[in-house]
Amino acid sequence: MTMRGLALAALGAGMLACSANAQPAPDGPVYENGTDLVLPTNYRSWRFIGAGLGMTYDGERGTQATGPDNPRFTHAFVNPAAYDHFMRTGSWPDGTVFMLEFRASQTEGSINRAGRFATQLTLLEAEVKDSRFPDGWAFYNFGPGSSLARVAKPLAGAQVASCVECHSEHGAVERTFVQFYPHLLEVAREKGTLKPGH
Amino acid sequence: MTMRGLALAALGAGMLACSANAQPAPDGPVYENGTDLVLPTNYRSWRFIGAGLGMTYDGERGTQATGPDNPRFTHAFVNPAAYDHFMRTGSWPDGTVFMLEFRASQTEGSINRAGRFATQLTLLEAEVKDSRFPDGWAFYNFGPGSSLARVAKPLAGAQVASCVECHSEHGAVERTFVQFYPHLLEVAREKGTLKPGH
Repeated sequence: MTMRGLALAALGAGMLACSANAQPAPDGPVYENGTDLVLPTNYRSWRFIGAGLGMTYDGERGTQATGPDNPRFTHAFVNPAAYDHFMRTGSWPDGTVFMLEFRASQTEGSINRAGRFATQLTLLEAEVKDSRFPDGWAFYNFGPGSSLARVAKPLAGAQVASCVECHSEHGAVERTFVQFYPHLLEVAREKGTLKPGH
Repeated sequence: MTMRGLALAALGAGMLACSANAQPAPDGPVYENGTDLVLPTNYRSWRFIGAGLGMTYDGERGTQATGPDNPRFTHAFVNPAAYDHFMRTGSWPDGTVFMLEFRASQTEGSINRAGRFATQLTLLEAEVKDSRFPDGWAFYNFGPGSSLARVAKPLAGAQVASCVECHSEHGAVERTFVQFYPHLLEVAREKGTLKPGH
């Protein structure tokens, strides 16, 4: 090998290591058995996109919020690569993972007098965009906060029919409720990706 | 230069570029004129640590929440390096930046029937840990969401006296209200960094 060849080889090795380091950590869905979703335990380091308190919806059978005396906070997070893509385009890439946590709420704790703040995790759900699903999206339930599943199967049949119907009919962007995420809503407006009527 | 020298120099250049890439982006406070805080415009990509709705506090003069008909959401974010440090230690490093956004809320929007979700940004505040301040912490107000300041001066005198008093007396960890951030509260309990009484 010539001196120049060796120098280039060495530089090349350096650059290779470099570009491997420069790649973003893979943050899309991790599956077992093809479509079972492994709980992304670091989802609280993802991008926070919105909060709600005691939200109920048309046609819902009242399983998610629990009345005025015990309303639940909902916190929605999305993986950073999908968030960055949405900020640029107003749309969701394949590999988007939404995590929706439900937390109990409390008032008059510590120096708080009115209003409510979030306390323990009660339920954790996910929604994933993956073109391998017939529908393009899948829904998962990791169960109660006190005993989260390590892996969840995609909801199927009657378990998921109302999710699919409501997200398809009422999601402001694709199958997601961007109308409840004000920071994303501005981006979708600017990029022209809101569905008609939103 | 020998062949080996050139190869090492080339490899060195590759590694230098590499380690520059591998360094986390600096995410601590950026100042002008020593202590004026530049608005971290990317704070929504930081770590979300907690939400509240319509929260009021002992001794408060009612400037932050606005009554039961128009409660505001509060969303707290912290810079990733400080968050990672807290997860390891239960305490805040110098260079911690809290961003607290206030958002209006709405109900009966889209398919929502009860409960509330967040809408436009109404106010943005910051709290910074920096040992150069006599007090160790400083407070900033970037003003209303419709016209955020690019840079804010540390609050001083009567503007900040009640912030300092309340955060000092009632913060569960140092000068921060970890009692309202359930995910951090678990870590502080485990690490034994909660103040007595919490």
